[in-house]
Amino acid sequence: MANPIDFYFDYSSPYGYIAAMKIDALAAKHGRSVNWKPILLGAVFKMTGAKPLTSLPLKGNYALIDIPRSARFHGLAYKHPSKFPIAGQAPSRAFYWVNARDPVLARQLARTLYQAFFVDDRDISSPEVTADVATTLGLKRDDVLAALNDPAVKEMLKNEVDAAIARGVFGSPYFVIDGEVFWGVDRFEQIERWLASGPF
Amino acid sequence: MANPIDFYFDYSSPYGYIAAMKIDALAAKHGRSVNWKPILLGAVFKMTGAKPLTSLPLKGNYALIDIPRSARFHGLAYKHPSKFPIAGQAPSRAFYWVNARDPVLARQLARTLYQAFFVDDRDISSPEVTADVATTLGLKRDDVLAALNDPAVKEMLKNEVDAAIARGVFGSPYFVIDGEVFWGVDRFEQIERWLASGPF
Repeated sequence: MANPIDFYFDYSSPYGYIAAMKIDALAAKHGRSVNWKPILLGAVFKMTGAKPLTSLPLKGNYALIDIPRSARFHGLAYKHPSKFPIAGQAPSRAFYWVNARDPVLARQLARTLYQAFFVDDRDISSPEVTADVATTLGLKRDDVLAALNDPAVKEMLKNEVDAAIARGVFGSPYFVIDGEVFWGVDRFEQIERWLASGPF
Repeated sequence: MANPIDFYFDYSSPYGYIAAMKIDALAAKHGRSVNWKPILLGAVFKMTGAKPLTSLPLKGNYALIDIPRSARFHGLAYKHPSKFPIAGQAPSRAFYWVNARDPVLARQLARTLYQAFFVDDRDISSPEVTADVATTLGLKRDDVLAALNDPAVKEMLKNEVDAAIARGVFGSPYFVIDGEVFWGVDRFEQIERWLASGPF
């Protein structure tokens, strides 16, 4: 059985959103599964001194052109959120809470939350909004809100973020495949070659 | 006649090297010409606060994996230079000096200088090395050395760097096509779609 793909992403990452909409199909085409791992890049940036792309001089303005163009290139809708960036605790905790019992539902939820943020301009950093989005997949609003405040769920996310930092994850989307690191949705071409024919 | 592609690059840029080896063929396939414009990103970085990729925490280590892998992906040799980054004045001035009278030879020289640096580990920041490399294309060593010290040639480069900064160029490779900006050799897929079927 081929190794699964580890897929790290942050809920404030537009390129993470594009990757999230595409990675499962790409992996399945080559007989791979995907481990989804939402993380909090803010914690990483504190250590590396990096800043959100859209806040950088010149590159920030370019990003606001490149992001929607990259979404269109991949056939996806995109509307830059009116509040950006956001804190990813609520959607990330919701993911890990669901993932512990139903990984398929968890990644449906991950994609639905990304779309709520990057297509419908809903502020998923709010626990209430994350819970409302989750109800569209049959989850109960009060259960989600309770989970987001559950110390055990908070601990799951904290552990995943700590493990990602320990592994050197520094961006989103960030993939580890057979021990090889690929950063960015613009590495999909290289990932596809790797999956099709191995190391190059 | 379709608009030419403006192609900005820095001689210390590994992804600029990959782009330089590929852009003319990609453009020609779609009936476009290319304006080659070596620049000095150091001057840009002073204004934007950006730093060379390989010097950044975590991203720098990743770059040292991603650069040779990206070169292999594009079928190109790559050996990370023992002295890196370098100042690009000598090779950039040599380019503009030749370009004023023979643009075809100038881009052959540009590619040959890039290969000397990124394949053969020759320090092209040295005027002597740049001149030696130029002799392989039939240029005379003393003529090149004189040109590199010619105030008029220095002025050509300075004007191009100033114009690039005024236009907002912030990275390498950096392309302007029909007014649209593309940054990075990893935007070749999007460039190709743009050239084939226009804005998307």
